[in-house]
Order: sequence, then structure tokens, then C-alpha cells
Amino acid sequence: MTRIDIIYEPIREDLAAVEETLGSVSRADAPWLAEMLATVLFAGGKRMRPAIALLAGKFGDYQKERSVPLATSLELLHTASLVHDDIIDSAGTRRGRPTASSLFDNHAAVVLGDYIFAQAAVFVAQTGNTEVTRLFAETMIVMAEAELAEDRTAFDYHQSIDAYLRRIKGKTASLFATAAQGGALVANASRDQADALQSYGENLGMAFQIVDDILDFSGDEQEMGKPVGSDLMQGTLTLPSLLLLENRPKDNPIEALFRERNSPDLLAQAITMVRESDILERSYQKARDFGDRACAALSILPATAVRTSLEEITDYVLERRT
Amino acid sequence: MTRIDIIYEPIREDLAAVEETLGSVSRADAPWLAEMLATVLFAGGKRMRPAIALLAGKFGDYQKERSVPLATSLELLHTASLVHDDIIDSAGTRRGRPTASSLFDNHAAVVLGDYIFAQAAVFVAQTGNTEVTRLFAETMIVMAEAELAEDRTAFDYHQSIDAYLRRIKGKTASLFATAAQGGALVANASRDQADALQSYGENLGMAFQIVDDILDFSGDEQEMGKPVGSDLMQGTLTLPSLLLLENRPKDNPIEALFRERNSPDLLAQAITMVRESDILERSYQKARDFGDRACAALSILPATAVRTSLEEITDYVLERRT
Repeated sequence: MTRIDIIYEPIREDLAAVEETLGSVSRADAPWLAEMLATVLFAGGKRMRPAIALLAGKFGDYQKERSVPLATSLELLHTASLVHDDIIDSAGTRRGRPTASSLFDNHAAVVLGDYIFAQAAVFVAQTGNTEVTRLFAETMIVMAEAELAEDRTAFDYHQSIDAYLRRIKGKTASLFATAAQGGALVANASRDQADALQSYGENLGMAFQIVDDILDFSGDEQEMGKPVGSDLMQGTLTLPSLLLLENRPKDNPIEALFRERNSPDLLAQAITMVRESDILERSYQKARDFGDRACAALSILPATAVRTSLEEITDYVLERRT
Repeated sequence: MTRIDIIYEPIREDLAAVEETLGSVSRADAPWLAEMLATVLFAGGKRMRPAIALLAGKFGDYQKERSVPLATSLELLHTASLVHDDIIDSAGTRRGRPTASSLFDNHAAVVLGDYIFAQAAVFVAQTGNTEVTRLFAETMIVMAEAELAEDRTAFDYHQSIDAYLRRIKGKTASLFATAAQGGALVANASRDQADALQSYGENLGMAFQIVDDILDFSGDEQEMGKPVGSDLMQGTLTLPSLLLLENRPKDNPIEALFRERNSPDLLAQAITMVRESDILERSYQKARDFGDRACAALSILPATAVRTSLEEITDYVLERRT
């Protein structure tokens, strides 16, 4: 068993049911559609959002008929947003595989994402929980707002770390928060428990995105399956680059890179400056702070194996290298 | 009052409430987002889907608190799909105004569409009706499936009229059907009435799309605000071009047009051949047949002013020139 399988042990069966449900979504009538769906739904994701929803449900009156559809809808929403993200980023690959938009062209990738969003909506409706259904739609709004804000500030050299934190809260942490909170709500956990899990998910999501942004500087291209520095190349400032701007406001290559765009030399300079400073360690410290807050939020919950799994997900997120 | 205002008279106040609600959606916190939303939500649409939902509700126990959110969600879903459609078609204009994707670039247009889809989901959840919420999500699936099928068969010369009818049923008629059926369901109309209205909406939607496809051959570029022949130029066969292929299988410019793409001469030839034949009249006859079926479906409903409005919408759709 891999480390993540051990962490997921308390929900192993139901996570297999989620996988099975995703399989049923991918078996569309038209073979070409089935193939498109299989490509994006089975691209090697860790199913972290479904796992969190299932684990959160274990603190309430767990019912498979509600938790599995919710968990499925979260993975579908996440996948749809990746498909649309890839269009946004003009990214050629994600996790080492060609992206949907590079395989199917932009037209089809947009509509494929819509199809998957709609499937997500069908599954969330199956929970029969109107609060969770609304929460789900509101999360999609928050995610889109943050994506639009990121798009709008691309190649803008003047951004604050606070604005960055707001952006990743909307783009990434909101869905982790909804996974944990929604998982609690469909299982009729108490309001306090649902709030605690919401806070866990949000802080975990912040840590997750900061690590993602660190790996874009420190990662190994082979392991990551995507080029290093892709955020900067696309004009997106993240924590490491913002700290570089703070450290060396008058002596850094980012302003020139954003002006000239597409300069591999300037990009390489920026990456080297980040790697040779304490910036990545300071960024990790920020991620660990969020991880600590995530675990602290769990303190009101009973100290079960399920809680341990949630805590270990935090470590897993902080230690991942791809 | 314009003709459509007279038709909408029985629901004038509630349609104004829908307009007001759409206005509140467009007043997003960020001014740039508010501007994007206003551009696409107030682009001069006829609000036909909301109107149908409101009218359908009048056959049941009409309650503004349920019908107005449903009607709003239908217009939002329609708008979101137009925003994404424009990306798909690489269309430069729609209804004479620049499209979202030409104004905001593809990235932003994709996410703006997602934002509006999510707002639609919020409003449909407000109806508190899980059957309608599910119907809504399923309609979005059907629409996306049809769009993907259209995409997939672009520039494919071998298509049947039956496949075309299936495609427009999914792409267009399904949302009209859901507007009418959903409008009845949120007002707790009887199952028979909801079924009759579903059939009305579906047949009306078929007529609507066929007229749309006729206007792409017969329309006035000035009035329409988009170039004539845009469907053929984008490789989409519609009823008039399919009838031309049937009439003159060995002697028509479409095969060459699809092979060469982007040939204004071949396009002009095809348009002239269609216009100088009986094809547009035969296409109108097909649209009128669907219009007749739409009205026939209403026969089980009480002969009220509301039913007259629904009947007149059919005439309006058949007679529209833009």
C-alpha cells in the first residue's frame, strides 16, 4: 500500500464506490464522449477532495447514499475546473499527460468541462440536501471569481501577498473547505463540527496551493510532468515570486520578464534567484502555518482514526514533491 | 408597446422582477466583473425562456418566490451557454454586439461562463424543488452533449436530417422544454399539465432553432448583426443545407466548401442555390409543423389569456426576422 492508501484506510470501500461512480459517468453512450471523459476523469488524481468529504462524514451519522454522491460531485467539479483551467493557461500538459484542451481543441474542452460541471450538479442534487447544493453552487462562484481575478492581474507587477492569499483561498481552498463542511453537513454532523471541518479544509487548501506554487519553482520537471516556472511564464505571481519582489525590489528579473514575456533567460534568472535564497524555506513555513491551523481546527473533534487520517493528509500535502 | 410586450402582458410584473434579479447578479463587488456581467446579461435578449417558465407557472399554484428564481436561472443558463458558444464558434459578433470572447479573450470568457452557470445553479436551488434542480442539471448535460456532437461533426459532409433534428433538440429545444415543464413543476401544476407544457416547450424550441437556421441563409446582415452563412462557414450543416444536399447530391458547392474551408465564393454559391430554390419555404413548413405541435400540446390546458400568450409566442418565433 502506498502512503496515501494507508491514510485513506477508514474510507477505503466508499472511495472505491466513488471511483466506480466516476467510472459510470465516463461510460457515456457515445464512444467518443466516453473516451474524452475517461481521459480527464482517470488522469491519476489523488481523489483528495472526495476523501476529505467521506472522512468528514464519519463524524456524523454517515450514510453512504449521501456521502458517495457528494464526494463524486466534488471530484467532478474539480475535474471540470481543471479542464477549463487548462484552456486558460494554454498549458500543454498537466501531471505529465497532455491536457484536455491540447487533445480535443478549445471548443470541445470548454463544452466537455460544462458537461462535467453538469454531472457534478446532478450528483450534488442526489444528496437531497439543499444547503449543500447551495454551498456547492456558491463555491463554484467563488472559484470562478478568483480565476477571473488571476486572469485580470496576469503580468501585473504590483500585487500584494494579501491579494495572493485571497486569490488562492477562492481558487483552491474554497473547494477543500466545501468538501470538509459539505461532508459533515450531509451526515448531519453538528454545526460546530461542520464549522471546524470547514476551517480544516480551508487551511489545508491554503497549504496545498502554497506547496503547489513552491513546486513550480523547486520541482523536478520529469517528476512534475510540467515545466518549472510555468506560473511566472504565464504572468502569475505566487508566494515565492512575491517574496523575491519584496526581497529585491530594484534588482530582480520579474519586471523585465513581464514586460518582454516569453524570455527563457529572464525566467531562468528568476528561478535561480528564488532557489538560491531562503524564499522557498520561508514559503514552506507559511504553508506549514496553514497546515498547523488545519490540524488545530480538528481539536474539537473526537480523536479517532478518522481524525488521524485528516491530520496525516495535512502532512502528506506539505511533504508532496509532485 | 411592442408585440412581444403585449404577449408578455400576463406576466409583466414578474418578468420585471426577473430583470431586476438579473440586475442584482450583474452588480458584483468588483467593478470589472460587474461590467463583464452587464455586457452579457443585458445584450438585448427577448427573455423568452423566463417568460415561458412564468407563463407555465400560471396553470398551477403560482408563487412568485419560486417562479422568479427559476425564470432567472433559465436566463442565466442560456446566457452562460451563449458565452461558451461564442468561444466555440470563434464568432466575432452576436446580435450585432461584440461577443464576450472577443471582448474579454478566451480565458476570461470561459470562466465568466462558469461564473454565470454557477449563479444559475444558485437560483435554481432557491426554488427548493429537488426535481426541478435535477431537471436543470440534466438539461445542461443534454445541451453539452449536443454541442459536443455538433463540434465533432463539423465539416463532415455526410449527415442526416434526423441527426440534425436530434442535435437541435438537445442544443435548443431541451432548454425550452425545461422552461415550460420546470415552470409548471415549481407551481405544483398537475403531472399532465407539466407533460403538456414540456411538449409545448420542446416543439417550440425545435421551431425556434429551425427558424434560426433559416435566417442564417435568408437574413439581412444589418438586421441580424452577424454575417449570413456563418453556420456553413463553420462547417455546421443545418436544415436548409441538408435539403440542398438532398436536392442536388452531385451538384452543390458544400463538399468543396468543407474541403477548402474559408472560401467566400463557394459560400456565396451555396447561399444563392438555397435562396433560389424552394428550400427555405420547405424549411419554414417544417418549423410551422413543430409550431403546430407546440400549440396542439396546449389543448389540454384551460383556454386562458396565458394559454393565448403561449400560442402567440409560437407565431412570434415563426415570424421573427432577426
